[in-house]
Amino acid sequence: MLTLRYFDNAATTVLCDEALKTYADVATNYIGNPSSLHQEGLKAKELLSLKRKQIASLLQVEDSHIFFTSGSSEANALIFNSLIWKMQKQEVILSNIEHPSVKEYSHLLKHLGWKVKTLNAPNGCINVQDLKEALSKNTRLVSLMLVNNVTGSIQDIQALVSAVRAFEQKAGGRKIHFHTDATQALGKIDFNLKKLGVDSASFSAHKFHGPRGVGFLYNTDRSIMSLSRGGLQESGLRAGTENLAGIAAMHAALEKSLQLQQQEGDRIRMLKTMMVHRLGFLPMLSPKEHCSPYIVAFSFPKLPSEVFSRMLYDQGFCVSAGSACSANAKQKGEGILQAMGFSSELAKSSIRISLSNYTTDDEVEALIQAITTIYKEHA
Amino acid sequence: MLTLRYFDNAATTVLCDEALKTYADVATNYIGNPSSLHQEGLKAKELLSLKRKQIASLLQVEDSHIFFTSGSSEANALIFNSLIWKMQKQEVILSNIEHPSVKEYSHLLKHLGWKVKTLNAPNGCINVQDLKEALSKNTRLVSLMLVNNVTGSIQDIQALVSAVRAFEQKAGGRKIHFHTDATQALGKIDFNLKKLGVDSASFSAHKFHGPRGVGFLYNTDRSIMSLSRGGLQESGLRAGTENLAGIAAMHAALEKSLQLQQQEGDRIRMLKTMMVHRLGFLPMLSPKEHCSPYIVAFSFPKLPSEVFSRMLYDQGFCVSAGSACSANAKQKGEGILQAMGFSSELAKSSIRISLSNYTTDDEVEALIQAITTIYKEHA
Repeated sequence: MLTLRYFDNAATTVLCDEALKTYADVATNYIGNPSSLHQEGLKAKELLSLKRKQIASLLQVEDSHIFFTSGSSEANALIFNSLIWKMQKQEVILSNIEHPSVKEYSHLLKHLGWKVKTLNAPNGCINVQDLKEALSKNTRLVSLMLVNNVTGSIQDIQALVSAVRAFEQKAGGRKIHFHTDATQALGKIDFNLKKLGVDSASFSAHKFHGPRGVGFLYNTDRSIMSLSRGGLQESGLRAGTENLAGIAAMHAALEKSLQLQQQEGDRIRMLKTMMVHRLGFLPMLSPKEHCSPYIVAFSFPKLPSEVFSRMLYDQGFCVSAGSACSANAKQKGEGILQAMGFSSELAKSSIRISLSNYTTDDEVEALIQAITTIYKEHA
Repeated sequence: MLTLRYFDNAATTVLCDEALKTYADVATNYIGNPSSLHQEGLKAKELLSLKRKQIASLLQVEDSHIFFTSGSSEANALIFNSLIWKMQKQEVILSNIEHPSVKEYSHLLKHLGWKVKTLNAPNGCINVQDLKEALSKNTRLVSLMLVNNVTGSIQDIQALVSAVRAFEQKAGGRKIHFHTDATQALGKIDFNLKKLGVDSASFSAHKFHGPRGVGFLYNTDRSIMSLSRGGLQESGLRAGTENLAGIAAMHAALEKSLQLQQQEGDRIRMLKTMMVHRLGFLPMLSPKEHCSPYIVAFSFPKLPSEVFSRMLYDQGFCVSAGSACSANAKQKGEGILQAMGFSSELAKSSIRISLSNYTTDDEVEALIQAITTIYKEHA
């Protein structure tokens, strides 16, 4: 039997034991709906409140700023949907390297009469100067991601936010909401939401070994309104009975993930450095600096990425051709690489290797050897 | 220690063993993202496709009409959000007894310039005649629930749909989308979506002993568009990495639930009949006919519902004061009862008892005795 070696942790991660155990425990022992007033409802409500506090504390933010969702896509949607309430159609600034759950909103916004300005990211990084030039008195929302899912490039969100705040002041103080999709950052790089200065950020549990179908929005902007308040869950921002077992499992996974990031971070950084060094014969698409230690993208210009990745699949390696968290991943991934300034040739032959804290040294060694062998056969 | 007796199954149900086992199995053994192209991705994609087929088959519908969501609230939202794309502001018909996840949309729709007509439900039932009178050439969407969550009343959706179809023909054939929130129906009453003739229907797993945070939309109307196609999951109707373990657990719960509905349905109907008979001293708010066997609402005019229900809580009984699947449940429940024509006095002193297939005869006997004793002490 083929040994499975999983290098697609930016697409989704394995549920950790702690999360699965917590899920089963809460699903079995907390049977009430947190909105019910009887003892089981109150017990569930207390746990929900505790998990909100604990997650907030791990992120060093207020618990009133944490809103549980079904994941990052929905958390991103909450911010964009809020614009639908606005009668005056104004402007939004995005980048061309955003995740589809952000970028695809431009269709609706344009349809509704909004102007959508999109910034490129030369060499993986959005320029502060480009943002400054895009800002106008009509800008209401800026949404720029923290860690890119295709190359791992880290944006200087703090500098980008500062540019927005400076513009706000100059332009008379009208609020511009700054949102960041931080899905690929949590448990992977150190960051502090308050220091970044963003108004909101989105997260998905399944990217840090938590369950799929659960995530959260960090939001400090009280003007954000959901399309329907539903049953008033999540302070009216997100309707639907809370996924308590999923939320508790997410907390367990986050706690473990941050712990492992401390313990394993150096090892992962070294593994990536070694990989970059020994695979130096391939053009690297990830930036040398300001990049997640957990993601590295290469190109193999001799082979289209689907052929190259297929050769790796056949040996039991799970890597990604393109961004790989969507069915149209390859095209999207290529589009993002082109927005970073890579040639179509490099983009079309890219593969993404994404690590987790559970990736072993042996697995990486095996991957390096497999890629080296394929290279020797096809170069 | 107090024996817990859970009679709030319309708010949420206990996760069944089959669902928990399936959740753990899939979370452990299907580690790929269904959108990934490697072997683990394909394996996950196959399971997703199988679960869609199996759920469709249990409902006797096409699998291409099943769209997984985080639950009913989101499934309802998908239908309403689709209206946001429409440039021409037209009309929507709802009832005053809809779940908040439907009814609260009226704020946004009115804000956007739509007309929202709301129908009452005298004695729990929406009149076909009232619907006929509300229909106009501008009606684009009718959303009427199948089973009411406060009293259990079953609407004659087939007759209501027929009225809409007849109007469509008379008015020149322009499509009116008919949506039904069927959350309280699945695993509780027999129905056939095709026979009902609805264009869409929404469902939540946690109402039939499946996990919270997962559900689905049945939809046959290809003009329904989500606000953002995101990563093109669920045919572009719902963005976000699919909650595969949750979906598989939902299928396990649904299969079990439909099985138990066959096996236990008669027993539950008898338990409800006995309860109605022996608690005959209390005004019953649920209709005598056309009502879910799993829900019965009473009123105890001598005591406000929070006092009456508190007395039951103190003895370990979990019942609901109001609709109880939202934090503002009591008010909402009262509003719904008033839309059904009940006096404010009856509405304010209502409690809802909701059964599941796991409710035992002894539990019901104990509840009847407890209510009888409280009645004797306070009548």
